[in-house]
Order: sequence, then structure tokens, then C-alpha cells
Amino acid sequence: MKRVVVTGSNGKIGQMVMDAWRESGAYDVVGLARSEGPYTDILADTSDLDALVQAFAGADAVVHLAGSSAVGSSWEDVLESNIIGLRNVFEAARVAGVPRVVFSSSNHAVGTFEMANSPQIWEIDDPRQIDETSEIMPDSLYGVSKAYGEAMARYYVDHHGLQAVCLRIGGCTGTDSPSAPENLWKPERDAEAGIREARMRMRAVWLSNRDCVHLIERSIDADVRWALVYGISDNPRKLWDIDHAREVLGFQPQDAAPREIFPGVE
Amino acid sequence: MKRVVVTGSNGKIGQMVMDAWRESGAYDVVGLARSEGPYTDILADTSDLDALVQAFAGADAVVHLAGSSAVGSSWEDVLESNIIGLRNVFEAARVAGVPRVVFSSSNHAVGTFEMANSPQIWEIDDPRQIDETSEIMPDSLYGVSKAYGEAMARYYVDHHGLQAVCLRIGGCTGTDSPSAPENLWKPERDAEAGIREARMRMRAVWLSNRDCVHLIERSIDADVRWALVYGISDNPRKLWDIDHAREVLGFQPQDAAPREIFPGVE
Repeated sequence: MKRVVVTGSNGKIGQMVMDAWRESGAYDVVGLARSEGPYTDILADTSDLDALVQAFAGADAVVHLAGSSAVGSSWEDVLESNIIGLRNVFEAARVAGVPRVVFSSSNHAVGTFEMANSPQIWEIDDPRQIDETSEIMPDSLYGVSKAYGEAMARYYVDHHGLQAVCLRIGGCTGTDSPSAPENLWKPERDAEAGIREARMRMRAVWLSNRDCVHLIERSIDADVRWALVYGISDNPRKLWDIDHAREVLGFQPQDAAPREIFPGVE
Repeated sequence: MKRVVVTGSNGKIGQMVMDAWRESGAYDVVGLARSEGPYTDILADTSDLDALVQAFAGADAVVHLAGSSAVGSSWEDVLESNIIGLRNVFEAARVAGVPRVVFSSSNHAVGTFEMANSPQIWEIDDPRQIDETSEIMPDSLYGVSKAYGEAMARYYVDHHGLQAVCLRIGGCTGTDSPSAPENLWKPERDAEAGIREARMRMRAVWLSNRDCVHLIERSIDADVRWALVYGISDNPRKLWDIDHAREVLGFQPQDAAPREIFPGVE
């Protein structure tokens, strides 16, 4: 059984995969976080290279989810976690001999394109799709740090023999199987940006919990040296391409957002 | 006359443009460096954001050449100069109201591709060309930092109204007009890598001094909001595309490396 260290194990996606793997027993999973919590098996900060090397010893993969996750993160937070911490994770994996790192990058590395073309780009029949070859257009310092992280990952793959999968993860709402649309559409959450636009966007970027866990499992297990992919469910409108994830990772989403964002309205 | 601040003014390319502009009077040029020298008008380090804001006040453009320039730079040097210093330069330009930043990026952001395909890719009739849309494949931490710098530049353009030109500058040998090949080929310099391969490479990547100065002048003056370009002379074999620089900057190189790398041998 593969030993997998999850950094940022108390975060939203960290908890999701920790719960899934503790239950399924898919991996011998170890949660690493910088504060105590129900998913903290190892207490360590990504600023501490030596602690990471120790924590990674004997692991088959690191799933690196730790970092500043807010799009509006300050430069100081981005620098500490997403730039210095990110490099420490790859360097520690190299030193500890961990063969693979799965890195949670972000669609915000190209976020300006979506921003400049919304809301039209979220329409059900809009043909435009962003993929892993799209021009880097960060919408934030956070987005800059994710483009940087992908470049760092590629460097460690090509020059230090690591394997790396960089995931631009879709909108995870904590919802599976929205057969009842109210499970996915949450007016109280969406009111600020306008309910219609928020629903259009979520339809185009949604990633269900189980599809997210599956995506990360494929990222650990697929026979691949390097991949940069978007991951969303099999939505009727896909802002981001998932053909590449299907092809290189064997990603097979089970869920799809509903076509109708209001009864009778696509 | 435009006021132009050159960071890293005592470096190789810094000295070149300082000399050119002091002589031509093309710009009101101010050299900024972190150590005293013949080109240091303002003594400041890019780690000091406030000093940069002061130095940039009233400038029409910043030509940002400062940074760790060695491909083998350590993580500590890259972090200090090329990551933190780079961000400070863009942030200071924003705060000081400087409309344009010209950033010396590097071909090493994609250096692995060349490395993996050499020496064949340097042959006179090899059809492959790397351009600004090529996949990021850094060959070093230095190369990672340049990919990061380009992403940061794009962020400041799209979200803070700056104009930015990122230059992946070719091989500047300090030579103009190699009508006598011995002006370009320097066996004592090239011996280590093998004279033939070193000459093949230089033929494919050479940028003469005056073409380099011209490229940077066009980067200051062209009517463009954002550009990422390679810049080399009009060589008979071009590893890097310059059509984009011609198109968006009006770059018109005057020089070209000779076809023959030895008498009678292409």
C-alpha cells in the first residue's frame, strides 16, 4: 500500500481526501499541517525544510495542498507559503527520495481570461475552453504563485527525476450528485455576485467531492512523469478542458452539474 | 525626453545601454545598482521597496536588468533578487506611477527543450523554433524565477494598468558586426563545450550589442501594453523566433551571425 503524505490536511480538500482514504484504505495516509487538528498526524510548517524531509521519509507520494488558498492573499502570505513553502516541498521530496508530488495549482494562473470574458463565457453553448496550453494570465498574486509552482514542478521533474502532477482544481462545493439542484445551487452563497451568474459559473467549473478524490487518486497512481491538467466534473458546459486529464491520468468523472440553472432555464 | 531608470546598471547589459544612451542622448538615463560603480547614479538594492519607489519617481520607464544572472544561481540568491526583488520593482513602479517596465527575462524559462534537443537543434537547417507560446520548461531555479517574473509582469499589466515588455534576450557576446568571424567565435571561450557545438549554438542565438540596445529601445518606445518576446540578431539559423518581436515591437536587427562556423563549413 502506498504511503501518501497530505500537506494542508486540515484544509477543505485536505479533509476530503483524508476522510476518503481513511475510510477506503486506499493509501496509508499521513496528514501534515501547521496547526493541531483532527487531520494533523505530523505538525510541521512548510517553511521548515528539515521537518519536511523527515516527514516525507518513506513516502511514495506527497499531495501538496498546503498554502495560502485565498485569491486575495497578501504578498507576504503568498511569499511565505506558496513560493518559499512550495519550493521546500519539492526540495524535501527530492532529498527524501519521494518519487511523486501532486501539487494543487489553480485556475487562477489563467484567471484573467475568464474574468475578461464573463459572464458570456459561462453560457451553456459558449465554445471557448481554457486548457493547459492557454497563456498564463494570473488574476492575483495567488495566481502568480501558482504559475510559479507549476514552473518549479516542471524543473524538478526534468532535472531531479521527480514525477509531478499539477492540478488546476475546479469549484469544489462539498456536494456530490446534485440530482436535486438545491444541493448545488446555494442562493445564500451566490447572492452577492448575482444568482444567475453564480449558477452559470458553477455549472461550468463544478467538481464534485468524489470526482475530486478520484482526480487526486489518479494523480498519485497514473503512469505519468509530468502532467498539468484541469479537473472538473463532466458538466454540460465546461469552461476548462478535461480531455487532457482523461488522457494522461485516466480521469473519469462520475458527476455532472445540471443543465438547468433555474427550472426550465439553461 | 523620457526618463529611464536602469536597474543593474553595472551589469553586462546595463553597462551596454548606459554607454549607448549616455552617448546618443536617447533618454535621460539613470543607473541604479546595489554597489558603487561607474554606472551607479542611485545606490539601492531591489530588496528595499521604499528606495525603489523613491528612485522611480518621475520615470517614464524602468529597464529591470538587476538580479542573479547566473544560470546556476543558488535558491537563496534567486529568492532574494529574482523573486522578491522582481516583485518589488513592479510594486514600486505601480506606487511611483511609472507607466512601463521592461524586464530582462531569459530563454532559460524554456531552456530544457534546447538542452534535450542539442546539438541537432543548432544545425543550420533545423526547422524547430522556440517562441513565446512554447511550453514553460525551466532548466534551473534561475529559469523558474524568470517564468515567475513573466507571470508577475502580466499580473501587473492586467490588474494595475502597467505596461510591460518581457525580453528573452539572446547570447550577447559584446560583439557587433562579425564580418570577421574571429570577432564572434572565440576558441578560448568555446573550448570547454567543444568548439563546433559552441559555434553552432552561438550562430543560432547571437544578439549583437547594437541589436540588443535597439531591442531595449523598442521595448521602451513601442505602442504596446504587453509583450513577451525573444530577441536575437537576424541569424541564418534562429533557435528562437523573432517574428513576434518584429511585429509587436518593431524590432529590426541589423546584424547576423555568419553561416560558416569554420571556413567552408556551415
